[in-house]
Amino acid sequence: MPGPRRSDCPISFALDLFGDRWTFLVIRDLMFKGKRRYSEFLASEEGMATNILADRLRKLEGAGIVVRTQAARNAGGLTYSLTEKGLDLAPLLVETVLWSAKHDASTAADPAFVTAATLDRPAVLTAVRQQHTDRTN
Amino acid sequence: MPGPRRSDCPISFALDLFGDRWTFLVIRDLMFKGKRRYSEFLASEEGMATNILADRLRKLEGAGIVVRTQAARNAGGLTYSLTEKGLDLAPLLVETVLWSAKHDASTAADPAFVTAATLDRPAVLTAVRQQHTDRTN
Repeated sequence: MPGPRRSDCPISFALDLFGDRWTFLVIRDLMFKGKRRYSEFLASEEGMATNILADRLRKLEGAGIVVRTQAARNAGGLTYSLTEKGLDLAPLLVETVLWSAKHDASTAADPAFVTAATLDRPAVLTAVRQQHTDRTN
Repeated sequence: MPGPRRSDCPISFALDLFGDRWTFLVIRDLMFKGKRRYSEFLASEEGMATNILADRLRKLEGAGIVVRTQAARNAGGLTYSLTEKGLDLAPLLVETVLWSAKHDASTAADPAFVTAATLDRPAVLTAVRQQHTDRTN
């Protein structure tokens, strides 16, 4: 995670990076929830341990999916954001949301988001990207 | 995997089922590679251990994603196939392939598949489903 490369299969490549229970939660927080700080990721409902969070952020940065920025002194320290490579994961996350929304009776997926992503997927993907860009500029 | 439910978030829900390095390889084998038997999954390039494979198949069956069928005696034992719920993962897997194909210089992703999925995603998703159905009928 990333462990040794197991094959050149594109599914295996992705799993070598993301094949754990936590990494996509951090990407979710960055992409959909407007979170940018370590303390914000740590506060997520799933209760990520601080050592796991630090490890995942380091690996995502190493893979060029997340970038860390030292904000101006008074702005309060380190912030994280997605790179273009990270934003390219939007379709994958949106499809994950749609699958879970369909198959989990207790889902907290936003029905308006599910409807929008079903009816006009390209527009939702553009909006997700734009919102991330607006937050980080 | 599935561990205790951590939240009602749709991303977390999916990770509770799939958040490991192996589960999606089995789904890949069923969906794209035409594999149906335990011995075929075991022979995959990534070298899944037999105890991991048995565990993942059991959990996928428990989650209603995979179904196990006892073939007629002379047809050679147990076969596995995807349920509708499992086939609904096709968009997620296709997006994973596209992301890795774009970002992994050594990818083994089939260029013809990548092009087709980029240009006409609905047609590719229909074909993936149809091919699975043809194999299992």
